[in-house]
Amino acid sequence: MLSKNKIKFIHSLKLKKYRDIQGLFIVEGRKTFEELFEGGLKVVFVAALPLFFDTHQFDSSVETTEISNEELRKISLLVTPADVLALFEIPKPSMNFDELKTQLSLFLDDIQNPGNLGTILRTAEWFGIKNVFCSPATVDIYNPKVVQATMGAIARMNVFYVEEEIFFTEIRNRNLPVFGAFLEGENIYSAILENAGIIVLGNEGSGISAKIEKFVSQRLLIPSYPQNAESVESLNVAVAGAIICSEFRRRN
Amino acid sequence: MLSKNKIKFIHSLKLKKYRDIQGLFIVEGRKTFEELFEGGLKVVFVAALPLFFDTHQFDSSVETTEISNEELRKISLLVTPADVLALFEIPKPSMNFDELKTQLSLFLDDIQNPGNLGTILRTAEWFGIKNVFCSPATVDIYNPKVVQATMGAIARMNVFYVEEEIFFTEIRNRNLPVFGAFLEGENIYSAILENAGIIVLGNEGSGISAKIEKFVSQRLLIPSYPQNAESVESLNVAVAGAIICSEFRRRN
Repeated sequence: MLSKNKIKFIHSLKLKKYRDIQGLFIVEGRKTFEELFEGGLKVVFVAALPLFFDTHQFDSSVETTEISNEELRKISLLVTPADVLALFEIPKPSMNFDELKTQLSLFLDDIQNPGNLGTILRTAEWFGIKNVFCSPATVDIYNPKVVQATMGAIARMNVFYVEEEIFFTEIRNRNLPVFGAFLEGENIYSAILENAGIIVLGNEGSGISAKIEKFVSQRLLIPSYPQNAESVESLNVAVAGAIICSEFRRRN
Repeated sequence: MLSKNKIKFIHSLKLKKYRDIQGLFIVEGRKTFEELFEGGLKVVFVAALPLFFDTHQFDSSVETTEISNEELRKISLLVTPADVLALFEIPKPSMNFDELKTQLSLFLDDIQNPGNLGTILRTAEWFGIKNVFCSPATVDIYNPKVVQATMGAIARMNVFYVEEEIFFTEIRNRNLPVFGAFLEGENIYSAILENAGIIVLGNEGSGISAKIEKFVSQRLLIPSYPQNAESVESLNVAVAGAIICSEFRRRN
């Protein structure tokens, strides 16, 4: 049984503002729950159907409540509520700029669509990328829609929201390459690519912003086929990101 | 001014059943409208704000109606209605199996998510793929959400819904290669790839179905990084499709 105050508290976490204040985010569904829990994220509250607790036990640091289908419907953000809704602590990974010298990382420049962000994180995980940096205006990774779309990748990667100018000044001070895809640039299939640095993915509508473009040290082009075909629109940002990551990894 | 019957008619086209009967689909927004119109698709009905008609004239074969913002809101499927809602004829491209011998085509095996289908079509267009075949259970390309997500690619490609067994029997009779991505297969980066044939993309949850797998002649693997890393979930189907198309095109 959930108190009115608890329901109100859970609903408040739909908003980034309250997630930031409380340091908590909402997770729904057994599969996502298990991936985050087994991935080592700290759960603080679990509301679930009685059956869920037959297979999931928690120590006393976790507040647990058996609820009915009807109660779950009241707090759920999903069209079809699952069997569990939990609150997890937002992880606070520590940042190590020198570590970035030996690996590929992503920078997301104002990605707006939760589905795109989720897909990008899954792809980044597939290609062994550990650190993802986001501009302040990028959609919040702890937005419930993103949490559902990442399929657990969220627990296995470090995600940072950083101020662009400060971040890229640090990157430039360390002479790290910064890659960006543009409609004119070196053909990515034949370009010489270092196996470390920052890959920038731009906003869905406006691409890489001017304030970040000035830090890009290698401009890359994903060629359309046949080359210079007319009428071709553009690639979805998650797709472009995947092709870039794939091409970096193919070389190694 | 729209009659009640017209409003009812437009609403009915949200359903595939009525789109199939009428041979019409809904298009919203100036950008999508223009891409489809300029792409040569036949428009039969245009309801728009007065301003729209200042820049768009139509001959007498097109039924046009000036409407108010309020009326547009009533018929729109969008959260934020645009300035135009139009009905276009569903194109009926003709199929030529022998043409497929010299080009890459896609087969979509029960893709369910409208956003994924839209992204796949945009990617296919980027990589110069002209023909996309869909299993009967794949989400309808004339679903309004897909129309919005394709950004006009829909006007510049041929999309066919075909019965799997019949289609792939024809393909096999012509000795065309059929490619599919699996979790075990030849490393796609080093595999010998013919530059023609059918690339199969599987359902979001269950991958390539058994009834189609038996027709696959080359099993490909997109390697994760570092190879055989644990914990990695899977790639989104639109992302996997993009990486496969990119790798085929890189070779040429």
